[in-house]
Amino acid sequence: MIDINARIGVALSRIREERPLIHHITNSVVMNDTANVTLHLGALPVMAWAAEEVAEMVDQADALLLNLGTPTPSRVDSMLIAGRRANERSIPVVFDPVGAGATTLRIESSLRLLDQLDVAVLRGNEGEIAALSAVWGLSEASPAPRARWVRGVESVVDTGHPAALARAMACKTGATVAITGPRDVVSDGHRVVHIDNGHLLLTAITGTGGMATTAVAVFAAVEDDLVVAAAGGLAAFAVAAEQAAPKAEGPASFKVALFDQIYSLTPERLVDSARITFAEPSDGR
Amino acid sequence: MIDINARIGVALSRIREERPLIHHITNSVVMNDTANVTLHLGALPVMAWAAEEVAEMVDQADALLLNLGTPTPSRVDSMLIAGRRANERSIPVVFDPVGAGATTLRIESSLRLLDQLDVAVLRGNEGEIAALSAVWGLSEASPAPRARWVRGVESVVDTGHPAALARAMACKTGATVAITGPRDVVSDGHRVVHIDNGHLLLTAITGTGGMATTAVAVFAAVEDDLVVAAAGGLAAFAVAAEQAAPKAEGPASFKVALFDQIYSLTPERLVDSARITFAEPSDGR
Amino acid sequence: MIDINARIGVALSRIREERPLIHHITNSVVMNDTANVTLHLGALPVMAWAAEEVAEMVDQADALLLNLGTPTPSRVDSMLIAGRRANERSIPVVFDPVGAGATTLRIESSLRLLDQLDVAVLRGNEGEIAALSAVWGLSEASPAPRARWVRGVESVVDTGHPAALARAMACKTGATVAITGPRDVVSDGHRVVHIDNGHLLLTAITGTGGMATTAVAVFAAVEDDLVVAAAGGLAAFAVAAEQAAPKAEGPASFKVALFDQIYSLTPERLVDSARITFAEPSDGR
Repeated sequence: MIDINARIGVALSRIREERPLIHHITNSVVMNDTANVTLHLGALPVMAWAAEEVAEMVDQADALLLNLGTPTPSRVDSMLIAGRRANERSIPVVFDPVGAGATTLRIESSLRLLDQLDVAVLRGNEGEIAALSAVWGLSEASPAPRARWVRGVESVVDTGHPAALARAMACKTGATVAITGPRDVVSDGHRVVHIDNGHLLLTAITGTGGMATTAVAVFAAVEDDLVVAAAGGLAAFAVAAEQAAPKAEGPASFKVALFDQIYSLTPERLVDSARITFAEPSDGR
Repeated sequence: MIDINARIGVALSRIREERPLIHHITNSVVMNDTANVTLHLGALPVMAWAAEEVAEMVDQADALLLNLGTPTPSRVDSMLIAGRRANERSIPVVFDPVGAGATTLRIESSLRLLDQLDVAVLRGNEGEIAALSAVWGLSEASPAPRARWVRGVESVVDTGHPAALARAMACKTGATVAITGPRDVVSDGHRVVHIDNGHLLLTAITGTGGMATTAVAVFAAVEDDLVVAAAGGLAAFAVAAEQAAPKAEGPASFKVALFDQIYSLTPERLVDSARITFAEPSDGR
Repeated sequence: MIDINARIGVALSRIREERPLIHHITNSVVMNDTANVTLHLGALPVMAWAAEEVAEMVDQADALLLNLGTPTPSRVDSMLIAGRRANERSIPVVFDPVGAGATTLRIESSLRLLDQLDVAVLRGNEGEIAALSAVWGLSEASPAPRARWVRGVESVVDTGHPAALARAMACKTGATVAITGPRDVVSDGHRVVHIDNGHLLLTAITGTGGMATTAVAVFAAVEDDLVVAAAGGLAAFAVAAEQAAPKAEGPASFKVALFDQIYSLTPERLVDSARITFAEPSDGR
């Protein structure tokens, strides 16, 4: 078993040295925040979505992040153009199916992207991933109206077995799957890791899912083992949240402290504070 | 006369318990802030404007907020689709005619929305509401170039009788009308209430009008009496501003404190601090 | 030689008294921040980009800011409509070619705007301005793949002679050219000034280039000498950054303090703290 904490510490050091460029095609709500998270981690963000330029921008990038919040059909077309170029260049594509399950557009757009692109990491909340899994009959939850999975972009599902869900979705899609929640879980279909960092205040501000996905994309730009990359990004973000919470008087001062802590997070502190565990192979959870 | 302070306290308790989903079709400047205001009050935000998905998203929602800042014709078309579904489902539509009076597009889009939809609450500054009222000949101010009403999105009008303006517009449109300013006024065409909370620093940050409208939409999701809902939303936002101001060293630290205070606002403090008064029936102001 | 510090102090006083309206057609990442910077300096922001309304909005405005971040062809078309009206009305057009050099769309859109509009001030980082200059064969740097100029929106160029670059571009375009970096430089093709204020934390948050451009547009709304206006805007922003840095624990608390300091910046402090120097005519740098 690899020493995953050591690996994510090395990854953070490489991010700070190499300053990978992360191309975001993302939603309008979180755009400023995810650009800042990218910078504070040590990478460079660029936001660009015009069909006329996305392929060229991907040519400069070290990772491509696709976030489906506030989707439009033309934005999804740009995601496909960018994603194909990213696949040709073998840079990782990280996909966040925001609100999948809330509307047909979001489900169908997610399926198009997962079908036509080689997605490196799929990051969502439990409701979003369960909604997608239900399309393929993977979810053990009984079929149900869409409202069962998410309300807007908020998960309202508790499958009771997120690790099994992540593993099944990883096998089906070929992507490493990261499901965030009180306990984060990551699986590539074989290995399963849990991350037990974080803070409840993360649920009190908008866009923390998109920020977590950003951290995953930043780590995936420098780390080829996608389970390590996803766990590293989620742990870095969640450790910063833990450091920030004692400084907060509410969600807005928490957000300020969180961003400050992401910036000042050292590889050493990340290695020491990340609570990442590999699940036993027989562990069905 | 109802005990309106008690009612808005109950409304805030219900928001925290029921977590209503507020669907925003809103402007790009304030989107992140209004999503956070929604969350901090205790409700859930979702931003979605593609014509392909807005009706489906409304099906999950408890209120629909339409904000005309940064308008485009296709965005307005989506507002109409979403608004009609909201009307069919009898969930409240709260409309903010940002910058009405500045351009023909904003005036005409506002009129389309008010004409084709059953708007529950219309919330604007005095210039925006006066500009709309002038179209119908309701404003006592003499006709004048558009620049008289707003500069960009800032009111430059002082009609001297905002209560009469609100009442007349409410009678004309069938909506409850809320005009914000140094003294907020709400009228459904019969009753008129004033809210005397707030702080001058609210004028030093962008988007506070849109944030106030958001608070109104959140309250309207749980409270059927729209005068109570509008007064409750405006009072909650303004009381939080009063609590935040002493902690601020300028507008940006004020905004952080304001959001923290919205989150920590209790029904008890809202009931105690809201300064809401019914105007006498003969009170022409 | 004019007393430029005195002049920018007078300009800031006029901004606070006259509250000029700044019409922004800008990118989605920085929109909220640049609206707040506009307000905190004492001016009024309005964001509007629909082709149907931009000319009418320009009719109210005292300056027009065009920012090319997150470009689309239709957004650029709106910039041209607005820019032509601004030229007809003789209000200054301030242009920020974000990421020029990263993609063909950004280079060609920049050239269209510079060719078809009378641009008052062109503000970019060294990579962006060098990329544009290379199109006209002005840059002394050898032709090179695009990746040489910018990575995403970050300059990766060090020409060694930004003053000469600014002067050459000013002569070519007719615009006053402002290049920001560790040392800012402004030239109208004849005079060259350097601004030596600022703080390294400005590189740790997204959108500081766009914020600097906003400050330039605000000053250009009240000051006809565009070298003074550009130097004033850049100095005001950079002096506020210096005042903010000691209060910061990281980039996010720095941003809060920066915005507070922009708001509380007095003409006196600006005059005292701005480090603006005219380069000697023979000074080729």
